[in-house]
Amino acid sequence: MAGNVDSMYRQLMQLPLFQGVSYEQLSLLIEKLPFHFLKFADGEQIIAAGERCTHLRFVVSGSVMLTTRLTHLNVELSQTLAAPNVLAPEFLFGRDTAYPFSATACGTAGILQLVKSDYVKMLQADKVFLFNILNCLSLHSQRFSGSLAAVKDGSVAERLAFFIQGMVAAGATRVELRFVQKDLCTLLGAQRATLLRALERLAGRGLLRHGPSGIVVDDVRSLLQAVK
Amino acid sequence: MAGNVDSMYRQLMQLPLFQGVSYEQLSLLIEKLPFHFLKFADGEQIIAAGERCTHLRFVVSGSVMLTTRLTHLNVELSQTLAAPNVLAPEFLFGRDTAYPFSATACGTAGILQLVKSDYVKMLQADKVFLFNILNCLSLHSQRFSGSLAAVKDGSVAERLAFFIQGMVAAGATRVELRFVQKDLCTLLGAQRATLLRALERLAGRGLLRHGPSGIVVDDVRSLLQAVK
Repeated sequence: MAGNVDSMYRQLMQLPLFQGVSYEQLSLLIEKLPFHFLKFADGEQIIAAGERCTHLRFVVSGSVMLTTRLTHLNVELSQTLAAPNVLAPEFLFGRDTAYPFSATACGTAGILQLVKSDYVKMLQADKVFLFNILNCLSLHSQRFSGSLAAVKDGSVAERLAFFIQGMVAAGATRVELRFVQKDLCTLLGAQRATLLRALERLAGRGLLRHGPSGIVVDDVRSLLQAVK
Repeated sequence: MAGNVDSMYRQLMQLPLFQGVSYEQLSLLIEKLPFHFLKFADGEQIIAAGERCTHLRFVVSGSVMLTTRLTHLNVELSQTLAAPNVLAPEFLFGRDTAYPFSATACGTAGILQLVKSDYVKMLQADKVFLFNILNCLSLHSQRFSGSLAAVKDGSVAERLAFFIQGMVAAGATRVELRFVQKDLCTLLGAQRATLLRALERLAGRGLLRHGPSGIVVDDVRSLLQAVK
């Protein structure tokens, strides 16, 4: 168990929110503040879509799948976040703190969580934590206009990458889309034949797999780098 | 002059970053911290594109025009921010702190600025300021995925609104696009004829004016509300 805790601390230290924090600082902090460790079984729901974000939550073991449904179109995106990762820190604050996705465990998953008011105490107590969250949220804030300003060729492949990039967390690995084809065409502004040709080409390069109502991207980073 | 300062304080109190701050707190703060007040003549440059963001900057009188050029396409967007407003607080922190736009005065404009390190002191000293910036950045962070999840019909009008919404600040009033038409078509994924029909329809509803290489939206909020 001591070994597990040790490896958990070392994993957490890799996260942007704990950047510049020493092993000693982190272990002191986790012992002092009421962090809670929760274990979820495969397929168990961790967060329901629309639930208020009341805790800062970290994935500390296993993987979690986040699923977002679009409001008006029959398109659903699932992304996998493996430990170590943080769950949508941009929903702790802001006018709307409802998670836009549901989260379920993929295999056994461990979540470490801290109630928002205690996290605010951390931010006030130490400038390192303050800078980390400001950097993290700012980076996130800059993404929308940054992605728009970088549009290159307007191709369907680029649009698909733009959509995925806008929807997923920085640490996401695998992405799965489930859709009614007509609605994916609407989302990407593409005719059916053009969409299928683009998907064939991306599949040919090993960047995704696709069927009539689904796309699987095993390595999001590779897809985004190849297309953008 | 006392009246000017009084009205400046009252204006600043309307900004999200000063929400929940009393007149007395704000005036004490501005007197205590090294805020600087700068005046710019019509057309004078306030910020060069690519310049590092070293100060938190407020528009406290007149108007400022921010102009962003896309990286790969010949499309340029200008937005007008009237006082009271804040200039891109999401570029104070994050990996990239280079302003992606240039800023020039529209008429005489007054800027109130505070160096970043003093702003951090404000955040540490008072939870109200801390919550305000966390809320502001979080709101901003949520916009990208939120806008994608809300796509309705994939029409050219919706795409244009999506682009404008992603590029402009919450407080922007007037937006102007200058472009090579082929590049605007690429950006919006639309054929020339389809684009022109969409622009005609929006112009017919009084939501914008357009020529062969430019679009002017006098009231961004109306356009976004009508289309989204």
